[in-house]
Amino acid sequence: MQYKEVAGGICAPKGFAAAGVHCGIRANHSEKYDLALIKADVRCAAAGVYTTNKVCGAPIKVDRAHLTDGYAQAIVVNSGNANTCAANGVALAEECCELVGKALNIDAKDVLPSSTGVIGQPMVIDPFARGIPAAAAKLAADAQGSTDAATAIMTTDTHKKEYAIQFELGGKTCTVGAIGKGSGMIAPNMATMLAFYTTDAAVSPALLEKALKTVVPGTYNQMSVDLDTSTNDTLIIMASGLAGNPEITEENADYDAFVAALTAIAEHMCAEHAGDGEGATHLITCEVTHAPDLKTARAVSRSVVCSNLFKAAVFGRDANWGRILCAIGYTPGDFSIDKVCVWLSSKAGEVYVCENAAYHPYSEDEAAKVLAEHDILVKVDMGTGDASAKAWGCDLTYDYVKINGDYRT
Amino acid sequence: MQYKEVAGGICAPKGFAAAGVHCGIRANHSEKYDLALIKADVRCAAAGVYTTNKVCGAPIKVDRAHLTDGYAQAIVVNSGNANTCAANGVALAEECCELVGKALNIDAKDVLPSSTGVIGQPMVIDPFARGIPAAAAKLAADAQGSTDAATAIMTTDTHKKEYAIQFELGGKTCTVGAIGKGSGMIAPNMATMLAFYTTDAAVSPALLEKALKTVVPGTYNQMSVDLDTSTNDTLIIMASGLAGNPEITEENADYDAFVAALTAIAEHMCAEHAGDGEGATHLITCEVTHAPDLKTARAVSRSVVCSNLFKAAVFGRDANWGRILCAIGYTPGDFSIDKVCVWLSSKAGEVYVCENAAYHPYSEDEAAKVLAEHDILVKVDMGTGDASAKAWGCDLTYDYVKINGDYRT
Repeated sequence: MQYKEVAGGICAPKGFAAAGVHCGIRANHSEKYDLALIKADVRCAAAGVYTTNKVCGAPIKVDRAHLTDGYAQAIVVNSGNANTCAANGVALAEECCELVGKALNIDAKDVLPSSTGVIGQPMVIDPFARGIPAAAAKLAADAQGSTDAATAIMTTDTHKKEYAIQFELGGKTCTVGAIGKGSGMIAPNMATMLAFYTTDAAVSPALLEKALKTVVPGTYNQMSVDLDTSTNDTLIIMASGLAGNPEITEENADYDAFVAALTAIAEHMCAEHAGDGEGATHLITCEVTHAPDLKTARAVSRSVVCSNLFKAAVFGRDANWGRILCAIGYTPGDFSIDKVCVWLSSKAGEVYVCENAAYHPYSEDEAAKVLAEHDILVKVDMGTGDASAKAWGCDLTYDYVKINGDYRT
Repeated sequence: MQYKEVAGGICAPKGFAAAGVHCGIRANHSEKYDLALIKADVRCAAAGVYTTNKVCGAPIKVDRAHLTDGYAQAIVVNSGNANTCAANGVALAEECCELVGKALNIDAKDVLPSSTGVIGQPMVIDPFARGIPAAAAKLAADAQGSTDAATAIMTTDTHKKEYAIQFELGGKTCTVGAIGKGSGMIAPNMATMLAFYTTDAAVSPALLEKALKTVVPGTYNQMSVDLDTSTNDTLIIMASGLAGNPEITEENADYDAFVAALTAIAEHMCAEHAGDGEGATHLITCEVTHAPDLKTARAVSRSVVCSNLFKAAVFGRDANWGRILCAIGYTPGDFSIDKVCVWLSSKAGEVYVCENAAYHPYSEDEAAKVLAEHDILVKVDMGTGDASAKAWGCDLTYDYVKINGDYRT
């Protein structure tokens, strides 16, 4: 299916407004927006997926509790402090929800909090007490509102991430919008991955959650900057139902179309996140085809984009295909590497570097041209089955080390 | 038990001679020793452990075949080319064994080959045809022989790695010596981990293999530079039996003493390897205590030394304990983090940074002093059991990226 890209990010679907403000979460940031607010006109079906880290941010505990009924109406997000491993973190997150409920005249239990920033630092309510009413007053159901929110959730991101697409559902035009921040699933303290999706499609809470859990394993869970699973990773979706399509309450054709649209926007966002990985100069996408099964396809593509050695080679524009083969080889699972073929591809061309797990003659000059582009595609054909998968990562650079060596100072 | 460190490396035990020469494996290295030869006076009980990568160097296939009888008399190692994914690699490795057999007048099947360097490059026999007789002529049963061999196997290592210790076994003084190269289990193409142990203890092939497989999981498998499991990782031990102790043929007290000695030298070598990780400016040792079980203790300590984010923080001398807790938290397995306490330690002092999974007040100045040392110890007390483990790693630095971005050029 083709999707139409539209402007407006999370405010593109009907029934959503957003805002971003500076409220002073971190003492040393005097102007940067650090608080985002997303509000729906109606109570929305809502679902979330969260980090699998045993250390888990306080807001996630509150999100889980507030989503037991499957509905929500607002999301409040701060950057600068993760509200993780801090005393009374849950109480503070609840207090934020109360403030949002009061400002928007909605139930505090319909508010979902989210935080990103340093772990283990005490957090106080004062900035929120100032910032939440200010954000509520600034809510806008337009592109600027989405952009302000996308800006407010950024930490080390070099650019804001927002996207929206339209598609047909039951004869109605539906829209899904997204904003995101962070550079992996994947990086604690600073590069926590946060993503917030809005849609005007009518989907029941149960099917919304099912759709999210169907899409995430092949998209967000296939994205990596440094293998470090953050304590705060969160993806939340709210569905207003205002597009007027027949509500999706079972796994029918509309459900499949919704999942396909969600996959399309998630793949776009994953490339955005990975390509803006900390210090990254290249987006690396690995596409595995003809794998014996889906699990292997996903694991192999992840191995390639996660290999520090291959990531450093891409930074050096070195077509060191042996490192790709090596990463495939140490992927857990019982599969053969004998028929593995590898191509390096970008808009500058494509080079066939490895045939049946051995060197395939290619021009190093040609390969260097391919690797000079920002977006690099590694194509791996395993030659043994029908499964395929993608994974997204980035190169390993001096700046990754610099950013993460200097972070707290 | 206390062990006495002795000089002489792999030539310290009775019955071993070694040599290193330049034979020109790589065209652009005109002087560096690139061929090592280790010879025993007698046929030795021998055992090996190898990479788990599905892509596996040709020499490893030959080693497995030559060790089916549990005996060997010589080891030949080249640096500069991994003899992996190259056509006729096994035939070439066998041909090297023939050359060694001829030069030393021993059975080619008692020769164990090993290679480290770039993957997928064709390799020719000519340098070996020149180098092996030269190395055989230069064999020396002294410290210089060991040092020359340790030098010949180096690739990106900044210094040679050799060590030997003495201990008592059945009333006899026994010696174990070791040389090693590489920076992990862990890095394909260049930083393949190779280790060669010699001992004059009398141990049957079966018990030697059992001892090796007992020691490696808690030592070499707990060492990481970048998580990239090389295609060529190899650890081989040869036991000459010339110390005159009663041969160890069962798991008795002598066996336990031998395992303990092997563990001691392996721990020393692991710290040597990790501390000389590519681009490293710090050795990071993580010691986990009071874990619920051994598997968890090992996995948690590995997670800490493998976290790119924590490794970058150590490079920046930043006591970012949240990243340690985060790495513990994403370790697979079913365990609680609630009682986790963490200390950062070095010869400059010790700071208590995390108590029961939350911030413990400490002086950042004090922590910076601790982290200014080369050798950093992270102590993790899980507070829930009796198991303990160690892992060894290094910091992530600009030079790691530089070395691995520029390697083939």
